[in-house]
Amino acid sequence: MFDLQEKLRQVEPLNEGAMAQTQSRLDDLTKPPGSLGILEEIARKIAGITGREQPEIHRKISILMAADHGVVEEGVSAYPSAVTAQMVLNFLRGGAAMNVLSRHVGAELAVMDVGVASDLPDHPMLWKRKVAYGTKNMVKEPAMTTWETLEAIKNGYEMAVHYIKKGTELIGTGEMGIGNTTSSTALLVHFAGIPVYDVVGRGTGVDDERLKLKIKAIEGALKQNKPSYAPLEALACVGGLEIAGLVGVFLACAVKRVPAVVDGFISAAAALVASRMHPQIRDYMLASHLSEEPGHRLMLELIGIKPILHMKMRLGEGTGAALAMNIIEASLKILREMATFSSAGVSGALENEK
Amino acid sequence: MFDLQEKLRQVEPLNEGAMAQTQSRLDDLTKPPGSLGILEEIARKIAGITGREQPEIHRKISILMAADHGVVEEGVSAYPSAVTAQMVLNFLRGGAAMNVLSRHVGAELAVMDVGVASDLPDHPMLWKRKVAYGTKNMVKEPAMTTWETLEAIKNGYEMAVHYIKKGTELIGTGEMGIGNTTSSTALLVHFAGIPVYDVVGRGTGVDDERLKLKIKAIEGALKQNKPSYAPLEALACVGGLEIAGLVGVFLACAVKRVPAVVDGFISAAAALVASRMHPQIRDYMLASHLSEEPGHRLMLELIGIKPILHMKMRLGEGTGAALAMNIIEASLKILREMATFSSAGVSGALENEK
Repeated sequence: MFDLQEKLRQVEPLNEGAMAQTQSRLDDLTKPPGSLGILEEIARKIAGITGREQPEIHRKISILMAADHGVVEEGVSAYPSAVTAQMVLNFLRGGAAMNVLSRHVGAELAVMDVGVASDLPDHPMLWKRKVAYGTKNMVKEPAMTTWETLEAIKNGYEMAVHYIKKGTELIGTGEMGIGNTTSSTALLVHFAGIPVYDVVGRGTGVDDERLKLKIKAIEGALKQNKPSYAPLEALACVGGLEIAGLVGVFLACAVKRVPAVVDGFISAAAALVASRMHPQIRDYMLASHLSEEPGHRLMLELIGIKPILHMKMRLGEGTGAALAMNIIEASLKILREMATFSSAGVSGALENEK
Repeated sequence: MFDLQEKLRQVEPLNEGAMAQTQSRLDDLTKPPGSLGILEEIARKIAGITGREQPEIHRKISILMAADHGVVEEGVSAYPSAVTAQMVLNFLRGGAAMNVLSRHVGAELAVMDVGVASDLPDHPMLWKRKVAYGTKNMVKEPAMTTWETLEAIKNGYEMAVHYIKKGTELIGTGEMGIGNTTSSTALLVHFAGIPVYDVVGRGTGVDDERLKLKIKAIEGALKQNKPSYAPLEALACVGGLEIAGLVGVFLACAVKRVPAVVDGFISAAAALVASRMHPQIRDYMLASHLSEEPGHRLMLELIGIKPILHMKMRLGEGTGAALAMNIIEASLKILREMATFSSAGVSGALENEK
């Protein structure tokens, strides 16, 4: 079985020395100190992650985990479960939003079937690592067994490590799974200790009636399973196979020291679980966007990362993370390509700034 | 003299027909309706601007206006006026943040000296259209005469039209001018009718003492000049030559129906003045980022546009607009490249969504 504890022990702090060197270079560039804001923060963070003073990104990938959710039988989604498999086929044909945006930013895209409810064809883009034909209905029993949860984490871990070994230096996270805002909200409600009503949202667009069913399902699942605050147990009780897969991706990025881009609400739910397994995994994450899902802001606050794009998106798939990749790359080019005050003959500030 | 009123009469509403066609296509793509949020809004807006149902951007440019400010003698900036010319030379050599980001997003960059306080060398990137060697000190007299203001607007207008005629389909706006957050704050305070203290910021990074001088200078300039709410007069009294130049760029984009990207606080001050000259000029603008300058949010609200990037930047130069260009292009690719529900064989929602 996958030794989760052993992987967690391999997570180390960011490289402070590389961060200090990068900060010193940033302060010597022809701009007022700190005036590029989060662009500078990203460069500094990636220096700390990679241990390189002037990191570069030659190869990047979006990893998209797909799986189904038994809780859909409670009527929590505006779409039928069949759409998960249909959308995976759409990814494989290149017609989904995530295909367009991955091509736009020059990122590879790879999809893992870690738990789709139907069988899928072979395809070079598709990793077939189905742990189950979807989760169980969490209102009635735990969504996954501990074995299934660990197996999905392992699959995500191995997929990320595969691409990292091939030279990938930036990993985006995406997901597809009808019903997965319900699971993600259950995880948020559980870890935040707040009423469902405070954070529940319309996901892909449920009406008032389905929203009531969604609230009832989340409350019911937490009441039925009574998960502890041990992240693995909570994930098994009310999470999902694609969420567990993404936990594995975040874990691999932290162990292998590669920056991981958090996408929307579901990706952030996985990031939250991972950061509860080891707080420093958070340091290897970059937030991309703030979605329309009401709980997303709180989720990112609990993790401790700040979104840069505010675009009212609520699609998932990794679309926000893909858009943010272009900005992350910009931050590293600033570091490498800008002139310094001395080289450009530009006067500094009139008084000493702090 | 430049016939401003005649140009303003040429501003027409967005093409509602093209926007409706684009909306209908967006709703047929394989995603829940509206789930790409502002990405969809941008695509719809550019359809309305260009009158094309599926607009494309083959060529884009950042136009950077540079000029000096007489008010710097009041001690309002952390940097000496000489830095304006030094930074223009830095742009011409390719070493500034704006060069790096323009290259990163594949945009051309052109700079206009519309009022730098010293003479600059010839260079293919530089338009030499100096109206004056900087503005007058607005605390003592109007920053510009009406003639100077109109001349700077004309120069910006002509520069934008030049590139539009060469096929440019997206224009970013940037500026360089030591002292120009002081002028921009004066314009905001005047049009918003609020105390200086409510919105004044540290610009490139002034300390507490200089911040007091900045507040005093803005209050003094408004008291001395008593501008009316006629946008041209307010611009002449407390604006700047680069701000006037950008007003000309925004006007040209509205007349020629090309989307213009608003950058930070100074670019937004020009956008505010332009939108007071004709409210529909606003419809041809796309906001890029929300800067750290405290008045920027109010400025964008007064114009009526919403920023998509929240990156705590406060550099200007057009850097935020450059980053946003990549996202604007993404929105048009979504429109052109995504599969529709029927073509991809993906099921629609279980009930009719609105």
